Amino acid sequence: MLSAEIIAVGSELLTPTKADTNSLWLTEKLNEIGIEVKLKTVVGDDEARLEETIKDALRRSDVVISTGGLGPTEDDVTRQVSARAVGKELIFREDVLAEISERFRQIKREMPEINKRQAFVIDSAEVLSNPNGSAPGMLFETDGKFFVVLPGPPRELKPMFENYILPKLREKAGEIFVKRKIIRVAGMGESAVDEAIAPIYLQYQNPQTTILFNRSEIEIHLAAQAETESEADRLLEEVAEKIADRLGIAVFTISDQTMEQVIGNLLTEENKTLSIAESCTGGLISERITEVAGASRYFIEGVIAYANEAKIRALNVPKELIEAHGAVSGEVAEAMAKGVRERAKTDFGISVTGVAGPGGGTAEKPVGLVFIGFSNAAETKSIKMNLPGDRYLIRWRASQAALDFLRRKMLKNLTTE
Amino acid sequence: MLSAEIIAVGSELLTPTKADTNSLWLTEKLNEIGIEVKLKTVVGDDEARLEETIKDALRRSDVVISTGGLGPTEDDVTRQVSARAVGKELIFREDVLAEISERFRQIKREMPEINKRQAFVIDSAEVLSNPNGSAPGMLFETDGKFFVVLPGPPRELKPMFENYILPKLREKAGEIFVKRKIIRVAGMGESAVDEAIAPIYLQYQNPQTTILFNRSEIEIHLAAQAETESEADRLLEEVAEKIADRLGIAVFTISDQTMEQVIGNLLTEENKTLSIAESCTGGLISERITEVAGASRYFIEGVIAYANEAKIRALNVPKELIEAHGAVSGEVAEAMAKGVRERAKTDFGISVTGVAGPGGGTAEKPVGLVFIGFSNAAETKSIKMNLPGDRYLIRWRASQAALDFLRRKMLKNLTTE
Repeated sequence: MLSAEIIAVGSELLTPTKADTNSLWLTEKLNEIGIEVKLKTVVGDDEARLEETIKDALRRSDVVISTGGLGPTEDDVTRQVSARAVGKELIFREDVLAEISERFRQIKREMPEINKRQAFVIDSAEVLSNPNGSAPGMLFETDGKFFVVLPGPPRELKPMFENYILPKLREKAGEIFVKRKIIRVAGMGESAVDEAIAPIYLQYQNPQTTILFNRSEIEIHLAAQAETESEADRLLEEVAEKIADRLGIAVFTISDQTMEQVIGNLLTEENKTLSIAESCTGGLISERITEVAGASRYFIEGVIAYANEAKIRALNVPKELIEAHGAVSGEVAEAMAKGVRERAKTDFGISVTGVAGPGGGTAEKPVGLVFIGFSNAAETKSIKMNLPGDRYLIRWRASQAALDFLRRKMLKNLTTE
Repeated sequence: MLSAEIIAVGSELLTPTKADTNSLWLTEKLNEIGIEVKLKTVVGDDEARLEETIKDALRRSDVVISTGGLGPTEDDVTRQVSARAVGKELIFREDVLAEISERFRQIKREMPEINKRQAFVIDSAEVLSNPNGSAPGMLFETDGKFFVVLPGPPRELKPMFENYILPKLREKAGEIFVKRKIIRVAGMGESAVDEAIAPIYLQYQNPQTTILFNRSEIEIHLAAQAETESEADRLLEEVAEKIADRLGIAVFTISDQTMEQVIGNLLTEENKTLSIAESCTGGLISERITEVAGASRYFIEGVIAYANEAKIRALNVPKELIEAHGAVSGEVAEAMAKGVRERAKTDFGISVTGVAGPGGGTAEKPVGLVFIGFSNAAETKSIKMNLPGDRYLIRWRASQAALDFLRRKMLKNLTTE
């Protein structure tokens, strides 16, 4: 397996607010063709450190990719430093200048004198055209190693890498295809998932399985490696199917969809409509549902009944019910779900009421106590949950639990815990 | 000025989905005491590369901080590699083991045998207690340089760094204080902001000014450096005040608050209540308002009237108005704001109706066309906006514009553009 290192150049990437994200995208592309990233460096506009970094990387790894520092100003040092690091001169190329000038002509601006600097390239490097910016990239091969010099802006870097570099690297790496699949699970804890599927994934070195815990979803990442794309797909399918079988209804997607997309598809397929009544989630569930383009086909109305008077007036929750059980109760959750469904005349109504914190908790009704309601023409039900986390996480987990309750009800197969 | 390098250890940080974020927090803390981060490395559980990285960093920089790789398993190699890199032995420390065992006793679990590994530390290093986990940190001083070895989980790393390391580094760095201030602006474009305030900030080398564009907010970041904290604060105040004066009402915070916090404070101070009617934003505005703990003091009700029938039924928008002007119109925005205010009996009502895309746009009403409504007892008004971006950005920008419209109205000083 070939090894790669990625070097991000730019002093702004060494500030507290800016992270290098190009390397994540590059890593994904490299992994797909079976090249492993072994080290990443972020270095400022600092000639000595950059030169040392490039030299070290070329000594240790088969592929070295630098991003950024190719702009036209004084503090863009990648051009001269990368030439120095590989023991070459920078040479001025008329044909490169012509291409840069042409680009300025196309966007109807005069080329500033300063941009001529970008026509200097490493002697004997292959020059990579940049249709989205003025800085050309470079590919330099030395001792069987690839040194790739790319501009920093993602919209310049990505097409350049995909069009020029990826085909060459694929050839160099040999026919290895790495494909990935994401399975998402709701309504089960991390250790329960691991316990259930470990007997499956431990049988396979390939695909590799990683379990990630992400807010309130468990994600199971599979990565398969094979000599052909279809073989990698087949390996993925085989394990994904076994895992999905084992976990049953807790799996809500095996194709990288979000919960709100899954719900949207189910509602569209069954030609059903939805309305939502929220208290502690404050609009989050409706916001998630409407993030999906085309949600107007099935989503009719949402009510955020934050105050008790709003629950009574807008959702027809009986005042006596709130007085008897409190606003945070299964009875009120059910009345909210039924109330919004009847008001909006939809097939389904769902609701959430709970204590998101940090204040407002009591011994009897602590922070994290949440009731989820569901109502259709046939039945109105609620479930009770105790969700861990801070205000943000409790709200997010409550929204996920409500959508998952609806999903399970629609699949007519609810398993209460 | 002292220089620092940060090394993040862990193979999971070399995957396409996981970025090192500890270094951003560490950079902020280091910058505050005048230490500049010159290079960052991410390296996997790879002994040779990690050893070389530590040695290079200690040769080049005054302070080297590593994070991660201190767990109890085989693939956690930071302990032995860091000892080797500084030419020392790992020694077993009974007192460290006692502390680790005590921690397990506190959380009422038996210490697995494997955790004994974490009681091995670099000979003559200072051991840093970890009240939030089992891995102790280390501080090793060599040739006047600081080598700091920290665990990876943020809740273990942060208190350890703040309690043990920061005071020592402050002493080493000398009395330099760097303080920051964030000014946020709504309702003005980036170039208009820059044009207005460049004559101010160009007069100052200190504080340094950076303008960032973040979704639909302009952020102006000021960083001042001085020998005392109060002098740094004074420098910040001076420039912040001038900038805030120049930009006037467009500045919604000079103290790093979010728009929804600013609105919450205004409503609380004036003892007013709010209701919200949303169409294309789908709950996002209510969700933002209720992200602030204590929003129940002023937020009564939200309605997401996604379908036209919901606008008519729930918000009393006259059917004829929708037929005459379309659901996306100033007239309907005003009727929605007034309708929700009257229904919820609040002091203010705000509304949004628009085309978030990607579908649904026409020549007359293109994607990005959004109307914002405002209503109180005295008046009901609307504004029209053409917002750029994809569905996510249009929704976010519309939510920001609606909150900003309310803010300006509350400040009784609306400047329409």
